[in-house]
Amino acid sequence: MKKHRVSIIGSGNWGSAISRVVGQNVTKHSGMFEESVRMWVFEEDIDGRPLTQIINETHENVKYLPGIKLPENVKAIPDLRAAAQDADILVFVLPHQFVYKTCDQLRGVLSADCKGISLIKGLDFRDNNILLFSDEISKILGIPCAALSGANIATEVAEEQWGETTIAMKNKEKDGDLFHKLFQTSYLSVAVIDDYTGLQICGALKNIIAVGAGICDGLKCGNNTKSALIRGGLLEMRKFGKTFFGGVHTVTFFESCGVADLITTCSGGRNRKAAEAFINSGKSIEEVERDVLNGQKLQGTTTALEVHHFLKARNQTNEFPLMTSVYKVIYERADPDTVIQSLHNLEVVK
Amino acid sequence: MKKHRVSIIGSGNWGSAISRVVGQNVTKHSGMFEESVRMWVFEEDIDGRPLTQIINETHENVKYLPGIKLPENVKAIPDLRAAAQDADILVFVLPHQFVYKTCDQLRGVLSADCKGISLIKGLDFRDNNILLFSDEISKILGIPCAALSGANIATEVAEEQWGETTIAMKNKEKDGDLFHKLFQTSYLSVAVIDDYTGLQICGALKNIIAVGAGICDGLKCGNNTKSALIRGGLLEMRKFGKTFFGGVHTVTFFESCGVADLITTCSGGRNRKAAEAFINSGKSIEEVERDVLNGQKLQGTTTALEVHHFLKARNQTNEFPLMTSVYKVIYERADPDTVIQSLHNLEVVK
Repeated sequence: MKKHRVSIIGSGNWGSAISRVVGQNVTKHSGMFEESVRMWVFEEDIDGRPLTQIINETHENVKYLPGIKLPENVKAIPDLRAAAQDADILVFVLPHQFVYKTCDQLRGVLSADCKGISLIKGLDFRDNNILLFSDEISKILGIPCAALSGANIATEVAEEQWGETTIAMKNKEKDGDLFHKLFQTSYLSVAVIDDYTGLQICGALKNIIAVGAGICDGLKCGNNTKSALIRGGLLEMRKFGKTFFGGVHTVTFFESCGVADLITTCSGGRNRKAAEAFINSGKSIEEVERDVLNGQKLQGTTTALEVHHFLKARNQTNEFPLMTSVYKVIYERADPDTVIQSLHNLEVVK
Repeated sequence: MKKHRVSIIGSGNWGSAISRVVGQNVTKHSGMFEESVRMWVFEEDIDGRPLTQIINETHENVKYLPGIKLPENVKAIPDLRAAAQDADILVFVLPHQFVYKTCDQLRGVLSADCKGISLIKGLDFRDNNILLFSDEISKILGIPCAALSGANIATEVAEEQWGETTIAMKNKEKDGDLFHKLFQTSYLSVAVIDDYTGLQICGALKNIIAVGAGICDGLKCGNNTKSALIRGGLLEMRKFGKTFFGGVHTVTFFESCGVADLITTCSGGRNRKAAEAFINSGKSIEEVERDVLNGQKLQGTTTALEVHHFLKARNQTNEFPLMTSVYKVIYERADPDTVIQSLHNLEVVK
């Protein structure tokens, strides 16, 4: 059997954490995978040295995952096409704004039966439609593309604290085992499902709910209120999937990518934290991003805005009161209590 | 229309909190309910005065819900039969060990078309079978009996912090509106469902999962692990319901009595807290109950023991690894990590 060559496209906090998992697994399953894992690293200068050189010499991504050793078989490569040349498996783990540009450059360099897996967070809102990044990668490169999402705080995975994740793919019977072997470790339990739409919707919308959870925390709400908010989020995520996409299953929300990731994101995480600071400080969300997040854009608020445009164009804002209220509090400075009021009539659809 | 006379059977922390809700609602819906709500109070001497007298004069249950005013139309009554005489609606909210003795005394005093609702926590394990308290009350008194459960920390409900709850009943079409009016307020949203078995199973089993969450916290596990544990608990509660009872629905776990109550109980609550102390202190669970809970028995550990006997008699312990591991850590002093290991192969059944 031909061994699979694995390339990781991206090397941020989550990309570096997952490179440990992948690096360990290709060694463990050496009959199945090539020993070396290439990781494309967007070159940066760190105190006068290129980041790729630091990673390859010290086996540490000092900028995005400091203090954690990467496996020695993970090779940092600054040239995108060189990193992906003849790859059989591409692990996409980069910020969503770079997906198209990156994929365009990968045309023609991959092996004939290359497969992808998207660890990209978010959905692509384009011309007021929603696209899944796994589908977009698939279309641009002409390869099948799975998706991975779960209750995965990157640092905890990097520290080998036990957790779980979910992989979703159209062709579960064909490639499910391959991806399971690439990501399953003693500290990361992998479930493979077929609902790749539901998985990616959960991964994006949970951040809106986490902003709601932060608003709730900023208002000093009790446990009853907070857990009602998480439940309300779960219901709206499910309804959103069922309303706008075919093939979204109720059981997906019982997976790690569903309820577990939602709980993790609403308990810790930057979206929750920034929204709490937004309520407590009285600053605008742009000011909070500047002061609390060093100018980085919050995924939850951006997604709330995009989902709002999407719903408004379809006259559906009233059907998703929680996500709509998060948009209103953040962008229209509505009374923060609007978020709590949005929960007053939750209904579980069969 | 004849007005309904409401009696509350029990007056602990949750009973007193719910007496505020009921007292407010009979006033609001005065065309539907008698103005006065009788509350049976197990008489105690508080610094030389009977508790019922204190409640009726100061409108405060100084022992079980100090600092909170009860509505003036809630009347504390020390005699059980007098409290329930000619009642049309009985709200049962007392510790489960007193249910049978209390019901026995109520025979023959109720109105002809009396209905009950059980706010009793737990399940009745008898002769290694599982009985629902709503069914037992129904059988003993010959009345229909609904059940109420949800993410309801009593103090938060008493302080009118917004939250939600779930009512389940066989005859939703007939009496759903009546019970909705009795419990729905601006700070407590009520959903009425028909899966009264699922609701009561959630209310009991969540406490076992909360013990698991406390073990997890005692081990200083991360967010990924903790949310996996809550998810694992949700899956086992669902599987338990579907395996041993008919008519348990997946959607019930999306209600306040399902996922929301589980999250609340695993975040705060005495079961979680005591289990964390159990891990940190190295004491036996009996010592923790004595030292941390003033000798009160923990519901989660007792239920873990009863569920273990139930499962063992049916050769089903392997099918419920999380609940079994909680039993083993608490009662057989198994390595606490057994609880985390039990989560390694979670499977979502369709």
